[in-house]
Amino acid sequence: MNNMDKQTRMAHAIRFLSMDAVEKANSGHPGLPMGAADIATVLFTKFMKFDPTAPKWADRDRFVLSAGHGSMLLYSLLHLLGYEDMSVEDLANFRQLGSKTAGHPEVGHASGIETTTGPLGQGLANGVGMAIAEKLMASKFGSELVDHYTYVLAGDGCLMEGISQEALALAGHLKLNKLILLWDDNNITIDGNVNVSDSTDQLARFRASGWNTDAVDGHDQAAIALAIEAARGSDKPTIIACKTTIGFGSPNKAGTNKVHGAPLGAEEIAATRAALGWENEPFDIPSDIRDAWRIAGLNAAHGHKEWQKRLDAADPELRAEFERRMRGDLPAGFEDAMVAYKKSLAADPKNVATRKASEMALTVINEVVPETIGGSADLTGSNNTKTPATVSVTADDFSGRYMNWGIREHLMGSAMNGMALHGGVIPYGGTFLVFADYMRGAMRLSALMEQRVIYVLTHDSIGLGEDGPTHQPVETLASLRAIPNMQVFRPADAMETAECWELSIKSDHAPSVHALTRQGLTPYRTEYSEENLCARGAYVLSDCDGDADVSIFASGSEVEIAMSAQSTLAEQDIKVRVVSVPCFELFEAQSDEYKKATLGAAKVNVGIEAALRMGWDRFIGTDGIFVGMNSFGASGPYKELYEKFGITAENVVTQVTERLKTA
Amino acid sequence: MNNMDKQTRMAHAIRFLSMDAVEKANSGHPGLPMGAADIATVLFTKFMKFDPTAPKWADRDRFVLSAGHGSMLLYSLLHLLGYEDMSVEDLANFRQLGSKTAGHPEVGHASGIETTTGPLGQGLANGVGMAIAEKLMASKFGSELVDHYTYVLAGDGCLMEGISQEALALAGHLKLNKLILLWDDNNITIDGNVNVSDSTDQLARFRASGWNTDAVDGHDQAAIALAIEAARGSDKPTIIACKTTIGFGSPNKAGTNKVHGAPLGAEEIAATRAALGWENEPFDIPSDIRDAWRIAGLNAAHGHKEWQKRLDAADPELRAEFERRMRGDLPAGFEDAMVAYKKSLAADPKNVATRKASEMALTVINEVVPETIGGSADLTGSNNTKTPATVSVTADDFSGRYMNWGIREHLMGSAMNGMALHGGVIPYGGTFLVFADYMRGAMRLSALMEQRVIYVLTHDSIGLGEDGPTHQPVETLASLRAIPNMQVFRPADAMETAECWELSIKSDHAPSVHALTRQGLTPYRTEYSEENLCARGAYVLSDCDGDADVSIFASGSEVEIAMSAQSTLAEQDIKVRVVSVPCFELFEAQSDEYKKATLGAAKVNVGIEAALRMGWDRFIGTDGIFVGMNSFGASGPYKELYEKFGITAENVVTQVTERLKTA
Repeated sequence: MNNMDKQTRMAHAIRFLSMDAVEKANSGHPGLPMGAADIATVLFTKFMKFDPTAPKWADRDRFVLSAGHGSMLLYSLLHLLGYEDMSVEDLANFRQLGSKTAGHPEVGHASGIETTTGPLGQGLANGVGMAIAEKLMASKFGSELVDHYTYVLAGDGCLMEGISQEALALAGHLKLNKLILLWDDNNITIDGNVNVSDSTDQLARFRASGWNTDAVDGHDQAAIALAIEAARGSDKPTIIACKTTIGFGSPNKAGTNKVHGAPLGAEEIAATRAALGWENEPFDIPSDIRDAWRIAGLNAAHGHKEWQKRLDAADPELRAEFERRMRGDLPAGFEDAMVAYKKSLAADPKNVATRKASEMALTVINEVVPETIGGSADLTGSNNTKTPATVSVTADDFSGRYMNWGIREHLMGSAMNGMALHGGVIPYGGTFLVFADYMRGAMRLSALMEQRVIYVLTHDSIGLGEDGPTHQPVETLASLRAIPNMQVFRPADAMETAECWELSIKSDHAPSVHALTRQGLTPYRTEYSEENLCARGAYVLSDCDGDADVSIFASGSEVEIAMSAQSTLAEQDIKVRVVSVPCFELFEAQSDEYKKATLGAAKVNVGIEAALRMGWDRFIGTDGIFVGMNSFGASGPYKELYEKFGITAENVVTQVTERLKTA
Repeated sequence: MNNMDKQTRMAHAIRFLSMDAVEKANSGHPGLPMGAADIATVLFTKFMKFDPTAPKWADRDRFVLSAGHGSMLLYSLLHLLGYEDMSVEDLANFRQLGSKTAGHPEVGHASGIETTTGPLGQGLANGVGMAIAEKLMASKFGSELVDHYTYVLAGDGCLMEGISQEALALAGHLKLNKLILLWDDNNITIDGNVNVSDSTDQLARFRASGWNTDAVDGHDQAAIALAIEAARGSDKPTIIACKTTIGFGSPNKAGTNKVHGAPLGAEEIAATRAALGWENEPFDIPSDIRDAWRIAGLNAAHGHKEWQKRLDAADPELRAEFERRMRGDLPAGFEDAMVAYKKSLAADPKNVATRKASEMALTVINEVVPETIGGSADLTGSNNTKTPATVSVTADDFSGRYMNWGIREHLMGSAMNGMALHGGVIPYGGTFLVFADYMRGAMRLSALMEQRVIYVLTHDSIGLGEDGPTHQPVETLASLRAIPNMQVFRPADAMETAECWELSIKSDHAPSVHALTRQGLTPYRTEYSEENLCARGAYVLSDCDGDADVSIFASGSEVEIAMSAQSTLAEQDIKVRVVSVPCFELFEAQSDEYKKATLGAAKVNVGIEAALRMGWDRFIGTDGIFVGMNSFGASGPYKELYEKFGITAENVVTQVTERLKTA
């Protein structure tokens, strides 16, 4: 048996493990692993740099299975390569409750899973983020410590999704030459042949954005190897179209959509065993093939020791900084800088929009936290996301710390996920709050993957004024608060904005949204507080003497209305306490005692937010008064809009006094 | 003055109206109208077919301003061309509360606004939908009645958004030759020159998907005219790159991002007047230019009379059908067919998944409602959206009624908006519920524009099982219910599914979502009801004798759990009523009396939904028991998942009996 035969049989090992696991689970996607097994074999045996015994090695190559439904390809590889936490039992538990081998790869479930994929196109955009992070880190720490590739395996689905265009356009623009996209070009989608819905010359599309392109027979391992070798030498990102047969090896189903997302069935698996000359039982791998894979795993790790030597020999300060950043710890100066900044705010309270307050906080943070990487989806001047420390990254210079993402929100979110997953950087990015809708697919994954990704979403209500209902969020806050593990901050003034930024920077297992105003806001937090009050999620901002008649709960720009209503009602001897609610999620995490005390026991509860009521019943009860929106907004000067929709202190006062009469 | 000079001055009229209106509003976007004025002048004076006195003429050309921030371009055109409801006062009220001239074009505010734009890229995808609708209608009614173009004016922002790729790829695939995209190629975005974030050869990208491409000087009206003429003769969709100067005419700001989104200022406007030799006061147009525009408006309408003659001469049945469909009325047979179908369901109740029940309902509907156009984003077999009546549309044959949208959810939503806006068709399209996130930008616009667009969203909970958390919606129902005017239906069995379909088809001013299960469900609505009970939004599905101890509210697949809990609790002499809640939105529209009666007055309220609690307090109060999800899901067989997350009748029974002890 020559070497090429062995390589082919190594690919067959992936094929059979995949079809066996899908068969046992009685659900799953055998088509891709069987089709792409040769590509994966070449990549992992000849090129990928990683260490199965040290899966978190910082300078490993990243592999992203963008076509996440083909998860058995990845699980098979990890098992065969010798990752300790991927046993044959794990493979046999594919898609079972509590297993590491979920239907789609879930980051954190097992070593070697670099990102959670399944929603198509995300992996490709994650890969762009990883490749960006690599260049940022290499620029800072040098190629001695940071010099690795990002490989993405994507299918037709990934390439049809719009996010693919956003991803490839920026990758080409930034000349991400260490990003290599292996396209499993099998010509099949769920509805049939690709030509049912597409006639795009994909390689021409990539070339139009400055990519290097190549095309090979995806079952010719020698050709694949040559193409990857060439790609690694390119000064551009590369896509290699690997023409494959989906479900390769299955005599009756290969090349059709029947093999995409359903078990082959015992009969067809037997036929495939016969056709490929594979005599082993399910989940059993011939010992020579098993050995060959283990050796590949060892070979892939060869560079690790040399790298460790280089790290050991590096300047101690540089090394410490590199290790700190890769651990995700914050620098020592962060807390002090925030204290000093908050004291300065208390000494000189500013009436500013919270988007401006965000810029002020970021100016401080970016000075002392060198790993923050700012950005905006082409709204830099509106999102106030750029500070003196953040010079724009360009294709020729990655020493900057600011990403001009272009008008590409979905890429921004997804690439920030990739950057956070890569490690060493803390990404934040801006757009208008309403356009969270354009990147919600990525935001959900930030939350599911528990990544420190920070969304700076300005123009957070009808307060943006004349741009009108297409630009005015009314349901967006509720829709984001609905995402599990997403911290949605809506600060009321500059001090709260500082506190919320502090929390989001520290929050290493959850993404954050900062919902920020365009319009200026009166500062109410004018005294320095050692405790970060926003960390409570909700807190009494302004109390009254004795038992309150009324509790008013409000967030962001509407805290001003609450405070004004409190004053007016006080003139009528009505006692009002005002509770600021910067973050629903953090409030829920408080003790029952704290929550009860904060909710209070007033006769009348009022919620104020220039958005929908959904979610506010938690604070005000179903019989509480809610002053907010119950429709889309309108185009006009913002003060007139607040009047039109009745979000005013006068309306609060009227409703409260009416209610107290009948209470 | 030669003719070309006059044409240039006609363009100047747009420029000055736009800069005057922005100046008066003290906000807005003068850059695009000034830059694209020549393109618009050529298009509207030489090519566009429309009738300012009959803006709804079915066979008019459609013009879509995809770059909606340039709204003053459109408002200026409508005013100049003689649309009666666009007076100079309307222009002067630009961006004021209650005006027709909102910051971004809002469909329904004034005649001639074909779609609501602003969120970038949507207009282009709307245009694809309109061009598809034109071909569908032409195939059905012939080119005598349907033969018009769709013109889209888009900027760099539209082309950077991922949705642009989804739109152009399908347009090229379907050879939508009557779609002409005028690209305002001004090389400027908000963050600066396009080359800050992009290096794409856009025309090469379009060619890669089968478009005809051309490039002209966007201020050379003769060249633009030649290019449009050629485009109209192409057998492919065409993009014409019109190289323009943003803010053309402004001596100090043209060609920069300063003129994109802010007033020029009195001084610069004066300088522009001097530079362009324009001596009129703000909002005043020289009479010869005003006349020339009015004549253009008359000329554009020339074809209307001839068309009316053809319509009058058409086969009466064909004519009646055409007019019915363009009015949006349903065919006479619809009600009867639904009655018959519901009776058949009552006679033979089926235990089926609601996705299957949806297919059954659609099979009936598609037979009697010939204007439904089905589709799926490459999940046809999973969404069950195809029925015998719906043959796939191909580039060569638009007599079909099914769209294979490809893996392009965002396009699907946005193109369905365009189809509905065009009229004559009722689009519905499918994907998995969780991927609503990918097309939320379009769904929001369906709701804002009040269009009859129907989203068929299957796999609606952890009930989909093994595909795991990336595919399991938990927050999606809440996030969609949050959108104003979006009807979210979650039917509990085949009968409710039929009723919900009936409602969504009839609902001509609101989009609908059908959230449907993958798993089979027990039928509870086994008797024929003349009244559509789902129209109430929530109704008592199963009452108890006398006053209830417990009210259980549930939707969709969890109604089964509610019914089971009711039985078990009855054995303990606990009286339970079960309220099915297929649609929150419709419930809110009921009378206070009905709502009060339906909510009931039980000691204990329970909500059950395999999703988050958000929104359910409306039914169960903040102290109600909620049995559902409070985290992302997991990969595993679905019955095990329901157990794991405690969404079981047993858990309901336990919690209710505990609560009753302390109540």
